[in-house]
Amino acid sequence: MRYVSFMDSGVSAWGALTEDGGIVKGNRICGTCPDLRSYIEVGFPDSHLFLDMKPDLAMEDAVLEPVIPNPSKIVMAALNYFEEGDDRSNPPAYPVLFLRLPSSQIGHRAPLVKPRVSEKLDFEGELAVIIGKPGRHIARGDAMAHVAGYSIYNDGSVRDWQKHSHQFTPGKNFQGTGAFGPCMVTADEISLSGGGLSLVTRVNGVEKQRTDTSRMIFDVPYLVSYISTFTVLNAGDVIVTGTCKGFGSTRTPQEFLSAGDVVDVEIEGIGVLSNPVEDEAG
Amino acid sequence: MRYVSFMDSGVSAWGALTEDGGIVKGNRICGTCPDLRSYIEVGFPDSHLFLDMKPDLAMEDAVLEPVIPNPSKIVMAALNYFEEGDDRSNPPAYPVLFLRLPSSQIGHRAPLVKPRVSEKLDFEGELAVIIGKPGRHIARGDAMAHVAGYSIYNDGSVRDWQKHSHQFTPGKNFQGTGAFGPCMVTADEISLSGGGLSLVTRVNGVEKQRTDTSRMIFDVPYLVSYISTFTVLNAGDVIVTGTCKGFGSTRTPQEFLSAGDVVDVEIEGIGVLSNPVEDEAG
Repeated sequence: MRYVSFMDSGVSAWGALTEDGGIVKGNRICGTCPDLRSYIEVGFPDSHLFLDMKPDLAMEDAVLEPVIPNPSKIVMAALNYFEEGDDRSNPPAYPVLFLRLPSSQIGHRAPLVKPRVSEKLDFEGELAVIIGKPGRHIARGDAMAHVAGYSIYNDGSVRDWQKHSHQFTPGKNFQGTGAFGPCMVTADEISLSGGGLSLVTRVNGVEKQRTDTSRMIFDVPYLVSYISTFTVLNAGDVIVTGTCKGFGSTRTPQEFLSAGDVVDVEIEGIGVLSNPVEDEAG
Repeated sequence: MRYVSFMDSGVSAWGALTEDGGIVKGNRICGTCPDLRSYIEVGFPDSHLFLDMKPDLAMEDAVLEPVIPNPSKIVMAALNYFEEGDDRSNPPAYPVLFLRLPSSQIGHRAPLVKPRVSEKLDFEGELAVIIGKPGRHIARGDAMAHVAGYSIYNDGSVRDWQKHSHQFTPGKNFQGTGAFGPCMVTADEISLSGGGLSLVTRVNGVEKQRTDTSRMIFDVPYLVSYISTFTVLNAGDVIVTGTCKGFGSTRTPQEFLSAGDVVDVEIEGIGVLSNPVEDEAG
């Protein structure tokens, strides 16, 4: 199944996707679930019923929100892919983690906001993991049972503010920089084992990043287990699993985003997250 | 005025302190305010009425929660005080900021939890700022008008996990490590100008940290302005303004917290935040 969050006449709503690209509003199946997070919390009851319902609106007409607009936490991994030539027998000891505020998020097709105070807005295409079953001290072997589904994230990064100090916080938390969508695909439809899923980022149609999820240094079970050692993972929490080489600030010459650019992140089996860049108002 | 959050028969509640150490429940004045955050949002209506009311319970009997249990964000500054001999004419260019998850917080008198996975739980006494009027791009000259009040924070830090990578996230977000209390003192009762407020941290009654808020490198107006450049500050948001030298991992020999220790952080004009240390269950 695929789920989205969207604005319905100015109110935050959620729904399920039908096979022909329609959205069935979530409250037709779960009247006590005001948002996708709460539907995940109660374990997706009666989800099969969505498939036979007449859609309320078309996906292409929807004003999409971040897949989970209101997670209790968003834990982000930094660079997390082996590149060609890397020595896989000698990985780093621990993942590099930082937090993103839910208020910094945007949905599919919403503008990535280039801040007034910077010329260094950059992109990072990533796989997002959405937690289902809550837990603390989750063993790696049990981790996948805590994953409700997957989506796509563009971890928009304001590089100069990210490097004001050794902590990434400011540059990773500008309003309108965390793109999350278009939808959540439930875990039963995604397999990360074997060859992995291809992950490609394009700017204005030109490929900038390409990897596949089998190249992750710290895989999903590791990240779920490690993060749950210090914090309780709740239904709807988001783990964004890190990026690979090729983002703008590592290119020669460096490339940053400008108003009018369009960033697409595509992950096999999930879809394409697409966002245009706009200058901050004012 | 002074406000607290506490558990009332298992439900999160809030109230105002009377002069004789009682708590008047908040719903007697603001029936539409389920928590202190929402009372701050609406601008403390009818707050003077609390002072003449008969308390519902004694402060000493209350099970206190973090002053704001549910902020939309907690932005923490790292080391942020000039020490004796520091060259004040040559400060760092920018503050070091990181985020703490609200779920890592505890209230006054609740146990600081020493994790099973670490022997390096440390303390950091700090001044907490609570936002009142929301804003983005707040000028330094306007910043104090956005402050609702002040409180005390003990930024309990798990030093080995803080240093797993260059990002502090894991070590600053263990469950039960962010102590916040005992109460919020409204901004009209606190002056940070002039000599500042003394800030002292004691472990088992022995002084470990001492400074005053006039020694801050990045003062409250600077922090409010800088943070609001990247994120919207909302009512009830918390800015924790950083610590001074003297915490355990910087001492010779290093000192870490053990079950049975008690950490007190005292700030002039606010009070004492006191928390015993307990081992994580299990």
